Amino acid sequence: MDEFGFIATLLAPLAAKEKGALGLKDDAAVLSVPSGQELVITQDAITQGVHFIGDEEPGLIARKLLRVNLSDLAAMGARPWGYFLSLMLPASADEAWLKAFAAGLRRDQKEFGMTLMGGDTTRIKGTLALSVSALGLVPKGRALKRSGARAGDGIFVSGTIGDAALGLQVARGEGRGARKDRKSSRSLTLDLRSSLLQRYRLPEPRLALGQALRDIATSCMDVSDGLMQDLGHMCAASRVGAEIRWEDIPLSQAVRAAVKPLKKPHECVLAGGDDYELLFTAPLSLQRTLRTIAGKIETRISLIGQMTKERAIKVLDEKGGKIVLGKSGWRHF
Amino acid sequence: MDEFGFIATLLAPLAAKEKGALGLKDDAAVLSVPSGQELVITQDAITQGVHFIGDEEPGLIARKLLRVNLSDLAAMGARPWGYFLSLMLPASADEAWLKAFAAGLRRDQKEFGMTLMGGDTTRIKGTLALSVSALGLVPKGRALKRSGARAGDGIFVSGTIGDAALGLQVARGEGRGARKDRKSSRSLTLDLRSSLLQRYRLPEPRLALGQALRDIATSCMDVSDGLMQDLGHMCAASRVGAEIRWEDIPLSQAVRAAVKPLKKPHECVLAGGDDYELLFTAPLSLQRTLRTIAGKIETRISLIGQMTKERAIKVLDEKGGKIVLGKSGWRHF
Repeated sequence: MDEFGFIATLLAPLAAKEKGALGLKDDAAVLSVPSGQELVITQDAITQGVHFIGDEEPGLIARKLLRVNLSDLAAMGARPWGYFLSLMLPASADEAWLKAFAAGLRRDQKEFGMTLMGGDTTRIKGTLALSVSALGLVPKGRALKRSGARAGDGIFVSGTIGDAALGLQVARGEGRGARKDRKSSRSLTLDLRSSLLQRYRLPEPRLALGQALRDIATSCMDVSDGLMQDLGHMCAASRVGAEIRWEDIPLSQAVRAAVKPLKKPHECVLAGGDDYELLFTAPLSLQRTLRTIAGKIETRISLIGQMTKERAIKVLDEKGGKIVLGKSGWRHF
Repeated sequence: MDEFGFIATLLAPLAAKEKGALGLKDDAAVLSVPSGQELVITQDAITQGVHFIGDEEPGLIARKLLRVNLSDLAAMGARPWGYFLSLMLPASADEAWLKAFAAGLRRDQKEFGMTLMGGDTTRIKGTLALSVSALGLVPKGRALKRSGARAGDGIFVSGTIGDAALGLQVARGEGRGARKDRKSSRSLTLDLRSSLLQRYRLPEPRLALGQALRDIATSCMDVSDGLMQDLGHMCAASRVGAEIRWEDIPLSQAVRAAVKPLKKPHECVLAGGDDYELLFTAPLSLQRTLRTIAGKIETRISLIGQMTKERAIKVLDEKGGKIVLGKSGWRHF
């Protein structure tokens, strides 16, 4: 299967629903943004050995690629529209790989209601690298932003935190042979290890929540580089500080079991990346509304602290003492 | 310089003009497409060892990256608006490299009137890989497409053809030491070699021409994978054939000199990639209008043949004989 065959047989069908994609046969897509809507665009790249191990089923890589981008759309309160894909393929990507990869795209396109609109397929001398631009739509002026949080607002997160960072440890342990497993996940049952791995490999973009928060949240972002670091970005954008309580951080059963033997469980949870949950602020008076939303979209929402006038970020233990973290999150360099 | 420092000090200033880029501080950009305009989006990736050698001045890599995308906007008749950048950096990209790269972006942004709107900066285990999504605007319904050419339409190209493919030979020769230069460029003067290299390294997106052709061309595309192959795509999209005349293909002085000693000069010119000239069709009755446009925007436009009802693509020599090519262009796999 050559480049043009791949595009015509495996990619073009994924672009069939959007007329503006021109069947992937032209130099660019030509799109009409519906009136009254703003365009939300994000672009995320993932590379082998950095964002994924490389031994994953190709469809899983495709789906993670779409989902890290969808998570950004969720954070802005946008609904997905379409995406552009840059696929930089090593020679090892054969026809079976391409088919499995395209099947992953097809599956998540359908699940999240978006369409391939264009992109580029090329060779790379090194290992697999991918980049996606995802397009979303949001009613004019109603996009959620990181700025806007006010002192006194409650700080909320969706789902549970820390699973994906521990899932990465599981993935690495598996990749190198079980004996090299890290301490925190070594003692877990297979079920718990699977659930952590799943969270690392296939994040759940919180699209319904993001859209439901449009007129409620004062600020919103997704947690991708570690809760503490991302909270820091939100505080900086909103010019406030934050106080969060360790015992209110929502932890899954697997994370609870994994961090139990650790002397410093906080860092692994609060500075671990890849959660792709939504972190947002809202007036505490809206807690009841948030409970209704959580029930309706079947997504856990937890109040974990409050924004403060003092521009510092503190994590408090159950006795109100300050927990000091060695690192706050992930940076690429 | 860490990831966030790089974004704040070198990239954020490039996004300052577009309010919707949110200072590169949010999860996504929020853009309002002006009413009456359609959005044109293209995405092109380039990787080290495939699209560039790697020893180039970093600013040149940045500018080529933007220009290959701008060339697609030109082909649609769009005017540039903004771009999203995925930068997948090996550990060898130090602060000096990042600064030079950003300087290249800044220079071409200004030249072509576009703004950085977002993107992603990440590590790669292999060599440098980059992807850009470029956004352009075009009045509703007036984008140029590959389809639309009719039998009898004249086939035109801008500039000269074949320079970049020969420039790649020069670049490869230089990279490996002059003695390994290819036959076709070995005998050239330094001036001619420089001009070929320049065309390979820094294509000239034909933006003014693309916009001028909006109500004139029946079809348009950019020549990136080789004139013959790209003409094939245009013919397929328009359901016509083509007949072009070898002696009417516009060749620069450098290309003429380089292909003179070759037994088969045609293939090197007609199947070589990276020209980034516009290939378009228009009624022959509009030749005078095209001459006026060419003069106004100071861009050479050459009539090289005619679209035909018969769905074959032929290259004719000066005596009307058919020239047979061994290959028609570049494919990545």
